[in-house]
Amino acid sequence: MSSTEVKLSRLLILAQKFNNFYLSGFHKCDIRPFVVEGQQVGLIKSDVLKHLEKYPEVFCIRACEQTKQGLVELNPAFRDYNERTEQLEKVLRNLRSEELFPALQGWRDEYFEVKADCRALLKMERAATPLFGVRKYGVDINGYVMHPTLGLCIWLQQRSNTKETWPGKWDNMVGGGLSVGFGIKETAIKEAAEEASIPCDLVKNLVSAGCVSFYFESRQGLFPNTEYVFDLELPLDFVPQNADGEVQAFELLTAKDCVERVFTSDFKTTSAPVVIDFLIRHGHITADDVVDFTQIVELLHVPLQSLYTYKTRLEQSKKQPQFLQGDSKNCNCAKLQKISVENGHKKPN
Amino acid sequence: MSSTEVKLSRLLILAQKFNNFYLSGFHKCDIRPFVVEGQQVGLIKSDVLKHLEKYPEVFCIRACEQTKQGLVELNPAFRDYNERTEQLEKVLRNLRSEELFPALQGWRDEYFEVKADCRALLKMERAATPLFGVRKYGVDINGYVMHPTLGLCIWLQQRSNTKETWPGKWDNMVGGGLSVGFGIKETAIKEAAEEASIPCDLVKNLVSAGCVSFYFESRQGLFPNTEYVFDLELPLDFVPQNADGEVQAFELLTAKDCVERVFTSDFKTTSAPVVIDFLIRHGHITADDVVDFTQIVELLHVPLQSLYTYKTRLEQSKKQPQFLQGDSKNCNCAKLQKISVENGHKKPN
Repeated sequence: MSSTEVKLSRLLILAQKFNNFYLSGFHKCDIRPFVVEGQQVGLIKSDVLKHLEKYPEVFCIRACEQTKQGLVELNPAFRDYNERTEQLEKVLRNLRSEELFPALQGWRDEYFEVKADCRALLKMERAATPLFGVRKYGVDINGYVMHPTLGLCIWLQQRSNTKETWPGKWDNMVGGGLSVGFGIKETAIKEAAEEASIPCDLVKNLVSAGCVSFYFESRQGLFPNTEYVFDLELPLDFVPQNADGEVQAFELLTAKDCVERVFTSDFKTTSAPVVIDFLIRHGHITADDVVDFTQIVELLHVPLQSLYTYKTRLEQSKKQPQFLQGDSKNCNCAKLQKISVENGHKKPN
Repeated sequence: MSSTEVKLSRLLILAQKFNNFYLSGFHKCDIRPFVVEGQQVGLIKSDVLKHLEKYPEVFCIRACEQTKQGLVELNPAFRDYNERTEQLEKVLRNLRSEELFPALQGWRDEYFEVKADCRALLKMERAATPLFGVRKYGVDINGYVMHPTLGLCIWLQQRSNTKETWPGKWDNMVGGGLSVGFGIKETAIKEAAEEASIPCDLVKNLVSAGCVSFYFESRQGLFPNTEYVFDLELPLDFVPQNADGEVQAFELLTAKDCVERVFTSDFKTTSAPVVIDFLIRHGHITADDVVDFTQIVELLHVPLQSLYTYKTRLEQSKKQPQFLQGDSKNCNCAKLQKISVENGHKKPN
């Protein structure tokens, strides 16, 4: 086997690893769209579903005659953003106290905003989002140096051992979830200051460079992640310093050493796509080196969009109320649904 | 409607335009895998299929019981690369003389190598590949200048009015199909010399920057294209000069003017993905500007791989010959198939 083939196998295996749900998980199991206000915002696996069934006043679990597919709908009678958030949070706090899901043991009192078509529908404890397969968005900064002798070198961070997720693992120089109320570049600038103390005069050189999308599954749940990526060339003498206690070390690696680090179990799996994309965009992983290059590039940009397009029946029920009646036998919350159909979004009880 | 929303619509509409087959065509029509030596190498639409039915000695058109899907198989009795190439070419020359397909009127006596898993299976007249939905690979060079006052500027070429495809349209500075026997970067260097007279001392700065994949359909047929992209920063005083008669003009545009040009009908639709990808990677189209940014990035890297995974029954028939017999009623070349099953790949007649 030539060295090229070895390289191929490792990169492709890695791309398949952070897309384990996209490539196989999705097809294997009973997975249901999670629908809020007529919009699909997530995907729910059967191991989560069986616990949600205990809360029929919050979740309407039913089969759709049209698509022959089950769906989980947040009670459409909940009036607004706040009520949806509160009702869901009650369930999440219950599930957490029952210690049913490892994901919820990482509860951090930090909210993630669940949106559809740019409209915020509710906010959800960040640790719970993998249970609902909610699409997550983050920013990542590739901090790099053009070294006079070593060529392109890349700054990596080692996550603090006290972090809830991936403690002690190697990661991109700067990364974080999109914060409510902040723009994408604005979040990148904020994270650059907090995580690596990058001053204004350097962060002004930030270059937006696209995004990567992948669909990973772990014991914690589902990670349909999109990371907006930024590149930042840093001066040779700059050394990142952590300011928020979430990083225990920074290290500058050559492009070659960086590739090796990404392959180790010490690297956060869900941060690998950003590094691979960076090395591809900067000519350090090329189509002449890697036979399955196009497949790897495709796996850095999987069409998550296509997994979140469930046409809910809620909208149809508004136009054709009679349409729902035949389906009520499949619903564990027929009473709620009936009220919803008769009175629009009136709150039941 | 805000200017951001206007921008969104135009970019998304364009991305949907060069993915018209991926997004809708594929689901609309009767489309069959084209199988050579047990490997799917293409997709064939019914308007092409009906003419291939006249050549049962070359094409085995049958239904697969397992997948409930029809397939078109190049006669598995053809012994090797040369025989497959000759037999297919005979049909193509016939079809050309009958003037059935606009695509074949662009016949150019230039071969494209049809491969699967890096193995060359046959070569096919380049003009015919859209009829068979064969995956096409090309290289493109984004030639750019960092102008002291205008910022990033991009060189575009205007195709010659005598070109068979997209005559007179605006296009990337350098582009071309992968040539048999040439590496990917090697092809880029060759095309850079032929199309734009870029000398060795400049072309050495070529940076591999990934690839774009999309699936376009036109009157000519199907275009499942993957373009390997290279970036090349050029000095301010360099002006590209065509050397092969295939270009009538070059023009240097600011990033902003370049975006506008791409939206016009004067721009070659299938070259737009390369320009959009370049502008995204260099921070000139950002997630803060365009609401559907992630969707657009996904449409620059569609998973063509997933449309070419038909598990042919040929391989199964080798392991379980009895498996084929029940299916022979669906085949228009049962005689060939029987010989093939009984005697392996022995040539019939």
